[in-house]
Amino acid sequence: MASPKAQARLFVEADLRPVATVPLSAKQAHYLGTVLRLRAGATIAAFNGRDGEWLARIEALGKADATLSALERRHPQAPEPDLWLAFAPIKRAPIDFLAQKATELGASRLWPVFTRNTQVKRVNLARLRSNAIEAAEQCGRLGVPEVVEPVSLENLIATWPRGRRLLVPDETGGGRPLAEVLAAAGSASAAEPFAILTGPEGGFARSELDVLCKLAFVTLVGLGPRILRADTAALAALACWQALLGDWRRGPAFEAHQEERS
Amino acid sequence: MASPKAQARLFVEADLRPVATVPLSAKQAHYLGTVLRLRAGATIAAFNGRDGEWLARIEALGKADATLSALERRHPQAPEPDLWLAFAPIKRAPIDFLAQKATELGASRLWPVFTRNTQVKRVNLARLRSNAIEAAEQCGRLGVPEVVEPVSLENLIATWPRGRRLLVPDETGGGRPLAEVLAAAGSASAAEPFAILTGPEGGFARSELDVLCKLAFVTLVGLGPRILRADTAALAALACWQALLGDWRRGPAFEAHQEERS
Repeated sequence: MASPKAQARLFVEADLRPVATVPLSAKQAHYLGTVLRLRAGATIAAFNGRDGEWLARIEALGKADATLSALERRHPQAPEPDLWLAFAPIKRAPIDFLAQKATELGASRLWPVFTRNTQVKRVNLARLRSNAIEAAEQCGRLGVPEVVEPVSLENLIATWPRGRRLLVPDETGGGRPLAEVLAAAGSASAAEPFAILTGPEGGFARSELDVLCKLAFVTLVGLGPRILRADTAALAALACWQALLGDWRRGPAFEAHQEERS
Repeated sequence: MASPKAQARLFVEADLRPVATVPLSAKQAHYLGTVLRLRAGATIAAFNGRDGEWLARIEALGKADATLSALERRHPQAPEPDLWLAFAPIKRAPIDFLAQKATELGASRLWPVFTRNTQVKRVNLARLRSNAIEAAEQCGRLGVPEVVEPVSLENLIATWPRGRRLLVPDETGGGRPLAEVLAAAGSASAAEPFAILTGPEGGFARSELDVLCKLAFVTLVGLGPRILRADTAALAALACWQALLGDWRRGPAFEAHQEERS
């Protein structure tokens, strides 16, 4: 009960252990000093995806740099669901939004995939990662989704890891209802790693769907009678997966979040 | 097979029946003539939420007005799932997004609700409705969600219709896992009307949750260990409801959508 309240929550690269000194970026220094108007001595929370969540004191805070010292761990690192989101990139505003929402919905990897009908030719990975970090800081995650270099659909398929299932929403009507597929998977194995792959605006080419539907690791799924935008389909599939196979099946939320709210 | 391809899809107010003349708005005339560069004689699709989807010919097209004539019905009106989304309004960009995504995800009503912690004081209903119409046009829905005047949480509760269940995502950990609640509801009754109520940024006040959790029509639900933004929670709950109780349980999508894509 003596723990001070954290006035911010930051993702850091450095190790977190007792009395560790943690350097922050210029952007983080700006955020703490100028946006939040915190001063040296204030207590914040820090996580790095490996060492759990720590309370940390701001030791020094300048315009372009800052350091923390780790005080005590308040949440141990916990395993997160293993659910990748591979997606044909979409235009900027939706992709920012997609990175944010997919992080909140617990995607463990964000992986842009170029398909036949993909209009977007380049993906700003730094921006994607920055959106994912910000969302992880705000939603209380202990890790940040891995942001991976884009691949072509051919390479995605050719290098697909053994044992990971891939769900592909198919708007042309070839898929089985998503809940049915997830229910069947749930009774088979709870710990299987999964991925979701969503197409671009305009959908997958027929030839791409023909290849995908023949692969043993792929299941085409249906998301109902309305045509969903690419970002909506991705978020809907992530939410349903978490609800039926992921960590939404646990009862009450972690006490961590009650604490944050109080 | 002789039907011409529709070059646009518009929501209209007028009745649709054989040879009906359908006036369009100035905004629709601009969209057809200036944005899409269509001319009189072109064929589009039109729906009004009552008469199914019709093929219609552009009869006249000026800068500020246009008329269609209805040719033939290509899809009969079909009942849509009865799922309201009541939500504490959030800031403008997320609310535009919420209207769009909720429409794609098949919400039948969008209803702003003012709660204790709601920061937004006014809701632009015309804008909300316009976003919903645009999304309905694009996603192939045969209707547009009803957009309803805002109410206070007290009035929402006081006037709640008999027989409609209300799911309230509770981030403080008081809810049962969403999939568990939906599975139990699914085995009880398939045609029960439902609603989802999401809180503002900052969540419901403790006193509000204490009132909600005592109401017979309310079920508090949990959406996992991460703190979801208000718009994410709404979309996630809508998607899971459609997947488990709504029209995603049907197999392949309507042939309508295959046609649109071809």
